[in-house]
Amino acid sequence: MTTVANTAIATPAIEDVQNRLDTRQIVIQKVGIKSIKHPIYFQNVDGHKQHTIATFDLAVNLAAHLKGTHMSRFVELIHELNGQFGVVELQNLLKKMLTKMQAEQGYIDVSFPYFRTKQAPVSQVSSSLDYQVTLHGEIHHGITAIQYTVVVPVTSLCPCSKEISAYGAHNQRSHITLKVASQQPLCLDKLIGMVESQGSCELYATLKRSDEKYITEKAYENPKFVEDIVRDVALELSKDLRILSFSVEAENFESIHNHSAYAKVVSE
Amino acid sequence: MTTVANTAIATPAIEDVQNRLDTRQIVIQKVGIKSIKHPIYFQNVDGHKQHTIATFDLAVNLAAHLKGTHMSRFVELIHELNGQFGVVELQNLLKKMLTKMQAEQGYIDVSFPYFRTKQAPVSQVSSSLDYQVTLHGEIHHGITAIQYTVVVPVTSLCPCSKEISAYGAHNQRSHITLKVASQQPLCLDKLIGMVESQGSCELYATLKRSDEKYITEKAYENPKFVEDIVRDVALELSKDLRILSFSVEAENFESIHNHSAYAKVVSE
Amino acid sequence: MTTVANTAIATPAIEDVQNRLDTRQIVIQKVGIKSIKHPIYFQNVDGHKQHTIATFDLAVNLAAHLKGTHMSRFVELIHELNGQFGVVELQNLLKKMLTKMQAEQGYIDVSFPYFRTKQAPVSQVSSSLDYQVTLHGEIHHGITAIQYTVVVPVTSLCPCSKEISAYGAHNQRSHITLKVASQQPLCLDKLIGMVESQGSCELYATLKRSDEKYITEKAYENPKFVEDIVRDVALELSKDLRILSFSVEAENFESIHNHSAYAKVVSE
Amino acid sequence: MTTVANTAIATPAIEDVQNRLDTRQIVIQKVGIKSIKHPIYFQNVDGHKQHTIATFDLAVNLAAHLKGTHMSRFVELIHELNGQFGVVELQNLLKKMLTKMQAEQGYIDVSFPYFRTKQAPVSQVSSSLDYQVTLHGEIHHGITAIQYTVVVPVTSLCPCSKEISAYGAHNQRSHITLKVASQQPLCLDKLIGMVESQGSCELYATLKRSDEKYITEKAYENPKFVEDIVRDVALELSKDLRILSFSVEAENFESIHNHSAYAKVVSE
Repeated sequence: MTTVANTAIATPAIEDVQNRLDTRQIVIQKVGIKSIKHPIYFQNVDGHKQHTIATFDLAVNLAAHLKGTHMSRFVELIHELNGQFGVVELQNLLKKMLTKMQAEQGYIDVSFPYFRTKQAPVSQVSSSLDYQVTLHGEIHHGITAIQYTVVVPVTSLCPCSKEISAYGAHNQRSHITLKVASQQPLCLDKLIGMVESQGSCELYATLKRSDEKYITEKAYENPKFVEDIVRDVALELSKDLRILSFSVEAENFESIHNHSAYAKVVSE
Repeated sequence: MTTVANTAIATPAIEDVQNRLDTRQIVIQKVGIKSIKHPIYFQNVDGHKQHTIATFDLAVNLAAHLKGTHMSRFVELIHELNGQFGVVELQNLLKKMLTKMQAEQGYIDVSFPYFRTKQAPVSQVSSSLDYQVTLHGEIHHGITAIQYTVVVPVTSLCPCSKEISAYGAHNQRSHITLKVASQQPLCLDKLIGMVESQGSCELYATLKRSDEKYITEKAYENPKFVEDIVRDVALELSKDLRILSFSVEAENFESIHNHSAYAKVVSE
Repeated sequence: MTTVANTAIATPAIEDVQNRLDTRQIVIQKVGIKSIKHPIYFQNVDGHKQHTIATFDLAVNLAAHLKGTHMSRFVELIHELNGQFGVVELQNLLKKMLTKMQAEQGYIDVSFPYFRTKQAPVSQVSSSLDYQVTLHGEIHHGITAIQYTVVVPVTSLCPCSKEISAYGAHNQRSHITLKVASQQPLCLDKLIGMVESQGSCELYATLKRSDEKYITEKAYENPKFVEDIVRDVALELSKDLRILSFSVEAENFESIHNHSAYAKVVSE
Repeated sequence: MTTVANTAIATPAIEDVQNRLDTRQIVIQKVGIKSIKHPIYFQNVDGHKQHTIATFDLAVNLAAHLKGTHMSRFVELIHELNGQFGVVELQNLLKKMLTKMQAEQGYIDVSFPYFRTKQAPVSQVSSSLDYQVTLHGEIHHGITAIQYTVVVPVTSLCPCSKEISAYGAHNQRSHITLKVASQQPLCLDKLIGMVESQGSCELYATLKRSDEKYITEKAYENPKFVEDIVRDVALELSKDLRILSFSVEAENFESIHNHSAYAKVVSE
């Protein structure tokens, strides 16, 4: 009925529309796929591995004269990992993607829940806690750069509330979001552990009564505003020479409000 | 190219596919539209009105012999409200929907943020707090029934943590979700206010230091488990003869864990 | 400063507040934990296993005379799985939970992304697709019951749009949500595969051009309203004698609207 | 029991902990509140007004020597708007915030659903469609800058699928996200309208059969990749001299995959 359809029926070879010339003369900075889930067997820098489920975003630049990219190749790249993933695999994937897509710049974000086994502070009962981790990889003309984002849940206890009240102090769950760039691979456990120790107290999945007493008192002895949390994390980061740049955010899901308190420090 | 397309071109009148006969002999309990946003000027039972943005779900039953419903009519029903909405308008809308869709049963859910102006407990500073409200309407053979859902954020303070610790007590934001059925229109402010008073303390958008001292101490003096919260709300509800049935849930976004504590009571 | 605190300091044994008597005489239907993430090695009925990340909700009833439950024991139950999970493990977990919590009724929901490897229809290229699966377990006085929820994404193509248009037809991603109760363990792959075949066409992660041609034409040849989808799934389910009851919902994220079309059939 | 608590009881004036000196010597780029909902009566540049519900984020910088900011003042700023909001009010709010918080830099994001009334293309039936809009305001040493984000849902129809298939073509809902900076106030309706016309077809809440035929055929005649959409929006933006810079993203919620296709163009 349409010329297009008739052509399609008549021609045995299926045309590759994406390869046509584009005349708009506009470079596309990023084109690719978003929000595809895939299981990975993640290897941390210290060699430890864990199975988890990752969400991948992959993109490359597209030259002005090309009409489109080949989306299915991005999915093939993910499957070719055979589930193995870590910082080394991310760097290799970036290079392989540029070759496969014939591009100059590439971007890969891989986000997944990461689990650490922790001992409760008094009872020493083990349980595992989840953290949201994202590895961001970029490649420009063969040079790769890796950024890490970790979202670390902690307790924060309000210094003002403690100071002005005859007893008690409001406290709440907070998210500390750290983004760091480093040329050396970073151990997720150490990065998370460092951030986690800057809240008023750490979280645990399993706490016995002796632990609950301990962490209640610890948080009360260690009050922190969102401002304190981001500064204390920033102070720790400034001691680590491998860190090229960072931003640290704290968001308190205030127990006394229906909104959040928020602070952010960015490295100079 | 296809018979269908040729027919479409040849026939001036556009066929109504939904009106065709269906031979599968399966009644559909609900068919309609979901997640459509529309501004409303909501009128509470006490006459007070407020502008807000609602998300509507509308559905009717579909007899076994009919192939499909007419989706665009649901959207027309929402527009015919002219933005006016409340319990009375919901009851009328249910009836109008049955007529328009030629159905026997109808279901409408309307969900929106609802704002109440509150005075801080000591400074008396005014600010407004948001609550998520849903009105659920059903109609079966001309008889309408209305259910209300209110999600009320409060502070909860852990009795165990307070009891076993030398000082302090973990506390957090909690959501109390109340669903009630009533044949009489209920005042949202009274319903929310009753629920809100069953937490360890209420939330406020604006608190001065004198208020923060007050509510910190109030929560500490008024510790409650999720179990206590749902029981205390249930006790209050059992005194209200207009309530036909209810469920009450409490979810604490625990400040010491990365998961929630949860409890639910359902009326008998 | 407070009597509570002094007592806590003076008494070596830490009191178990949850074990106190409650005088409100209100039974709690459900008390437990919500939204805790944990890695699992899921075993399907056919013996195949896959690593994934699950979100657990666990709850039991609480007798009227008890003040509270012991939340940390729920987390211990999850850890005692040692990551092994499937229908058999869910049934055992329900029983173990009742014993551990000294309760009569128990409820466990376990939700996780589940992956199936699929071959593209023409090129036969393999890739994996994710589905959201939830196993719901209940136990009442020793009797367990299992429900399955699978959310299956498919393509739906509008019969009306095809019929009335000279060419083309609007289509979109749809979610088919099936809930089934069965006394016999059900194979997830077969359940998902059955549902998936009732859309206008299945989805795939990787499609080559020959596949894209195939599925475009297949969807065009196989138009379905949400009403058709739920009826066709219901017809298939009615042939399976192991299914005790079911509900099936279809939600089309309409490509021509900013809202969804929706239908639901519930077994009698 | 603690010195803090005794002091609090003994001292009638409540200390302002936030005003204490901080010795860590770390500037905080942003400190404030996040995710607070408030009703607004939004005025577009063309004078038209509509009631909606906004989510506000407000933040200022904090000098290295100050321990904390005064969070309650941000909430007061929102209430002092008396619900009136638009680009002019945003600029005033930025200035007022700097004075009130004694800061040099300020950041305000206000996000809300925005409704436009549209006529269906053939039947001319009116209905309203919702778009997510965010106004971003920044102020640095008295100079304000405003950015606009609009998320515009459209239909996209795949050129490759159309070309290679004998009939039909896969299409889906897409989100076009445009961010623009301008020193002159921009009319939201014109901005949204321009973006909306770059999809394969616009969306509408209400479509009669004659409209559905029209838009099905229009989308089929107007196939676009994500790459085409971002380029076509970029071309239009380059003609508007008021636009200082922009980024445009397109995300197709692919009807044939369970992931998205994505493209982004950023102005030079």
